[in-house]
Amino acid sequence: MQKIHIIGLGLLGGSFGLGARRKFPEVIVTGTDSNPKNLKDALTLGIITEAKEAPDADTDLVILATPADSLGELLLKTLDQIGEETLIFDLGSTKAKLCQLVESHPKRKQYLAAHPIAGTEYSGPKAAFADLLDRKVMILCELEKTDLHLKEKAYELFEALNLKLRFMDPEEHDRHLAFVSHLSHISSFMLGETVLQKMEDDKNIFDMAGSGFASTVRLAKSSPAMWAPILIENKENILSALDGYIANLQAFRDKISAGDSNGIYDEMASINKIGEILDLGK
Amino acid sequence: MQKIHIIGLGLLGGSFGLGARRKFPEVIVTGTDSNPKNLKDALTLGIITEAKEAPDADTDLVILATPADSLGELLLKTLDQIGEETLIFDLGSTKAKLCQLVESHPKRKQYLAAHPIAGTEYSGPKAAFADLLDRKVMILCELEKTDLHLKEKAYELFEALNLKLRFMDPEEHDRHLAFVSHLSHISSFMLGETVLQKMEDDKNIFDMAGSGFASTVRLAKSSPAMWAPILIENKENILSALDGYIANLQAFRDKISAGDSNGIYDEMASINKIGEILDLGK
Repeated sequence: MQKIHIIGLGLLGGSFGLGARRKFPEVIVTGTDSNPKNLKDALTLGIITEAKEAPDADTDLVILATPADSLGELLLKTLDQIGEETLIFDLGSTKAKLCQLVESHPKRKQYLAAHPIAGTEYSGPKAAFADLLDRKVMILCELEKTDLHLKEKAYELFEALNLKLRFMDPEEHDRHLAFVSHLSHISSFMLGETVLQKMEDDKNIFDMAGSGFASTVRLAKSSPAMWAPILIENKENILSALDGYIANLQAFRDKISAGDSNGIYDEMASINKIGEILDLGK
Repeated sequence: MQKIHIIGLGLLGGSFGLGARRKFPEVIVTGTDSNPKNLKDALTLGIITEAKEAPDADTDLVILATPADSLGELLLKTLDQIGEETLIFDLGSTKAKLCQLVESHPKRKQYLAAHPIAGTEYSGPKAAFADLLDRKVMILCELEKTDLHLKEKAYELFEALNLKLRFMDPEEHDRHLAFVSHLSHISSFMLGETVLQKMEDDKNIFDMAGSGFASTVRLAKSSPAMWAPILIENKENILSALDGYIANLQAFRDKISAGDSNGIYDEMASINKIGEILDLGK
């Protein structure tokens, strides 16, 4: 591996750059960002070694790390620019539409659909750090449609970054992620909004917020530039998750309203098993 | 301070015992728990020095640390048992009903309504630790109704444990807590339930759960024995918070359904300010 090009130098793209440069000190990392400030920061922080609009013809890997709604156009454009020995992978949080878009593209074999389950509530190059991807899950879709030889280049990087690979089809990916990622961002944002609205009457309301509230509302600090497009791209699955969530809230509300202590207790007790399931996964 | 009696030796009561014994090595801490296993564990763990059903007449402080729905009866019973130099305070998450209950009690001056904003998602004496209360907020209500001299005993303990005191009336307390604590527990439990329901079709759904999901769903591990009574005790305020939350979710759902990217972006961006507010409070 000699040359990597990263488009989008925020939290994820930036962390891939820092991680790659630490593991492969000789590698040249070029890159670009539509925001000139981000591009400048990425150079200062050593995320990339050189600013470059498009990948060189001899680039091994191109990483697309821009918001979900920009990835389709960017992928098509970048496929046109690359040489025969280049593999492109993206880091988008939705996979079905992208895979459909390039399904019969003449260069389909030079693309790998990827999604690392990694992030924080912060964004931009300054939020990036080399260890972000360490021991995180990397989901790969439609692996059989990518060239075997080119795939090896991506695997070399994934292994160096200590990513744990998982394989699934793009529709399954999008359906799962709506529940275990997209929905929790919405629940967190809406919780934040509800308390902010209350603050208009009760100025000191946040004085009483403990670590439990901080934990539940943490994701409400996330970047709208990243998240608004995801919610639109994965709309159908998210609406299904959200409708289930609202129905559960409504039913639980009715139990509280009816003073049904036993019903509330039993429901909470049965949900407690999520603790074992999550701890098992560690 | 020579003698403390703790009724309810779980996470909070147990942490008060451990903290008090560390700061005042000479103090005698007696206590009881309706669960014999908890009582035995509390003795083994050194939370109390002696098991005792009711406080001795010369006890300085009695701490009531049982679930919210048991506190009223327990407070009345314990007021009957104590000597003239004893102060009782409770640690309940709701305050208005308790304060109303004892409003015209002849021993009202021997009671202090308290609520420490501290806890974890775990429960029982084994979850207790001496530092749990360190630098946490302790809300006190109707301070003027407690005897000045007896209050000093509580202050001595609170100061030793490094608690930060805040004062408000019980109704304000219950209204605030519905939003910044009780609602986030409900949102977390319902999120857990929604994903558990989905798991019935998609067995591997939790493989894709990242740190964001873990953070949002953490409170769903909380004890139903503690939480079901709180939701009933603070029903009116919680229904108001929950209705606001459901309305926000429904409106946001409609924006997603309509594909309103700009509306979603703007709403998320305005909620982002919760990050600054929470960081300010640190």
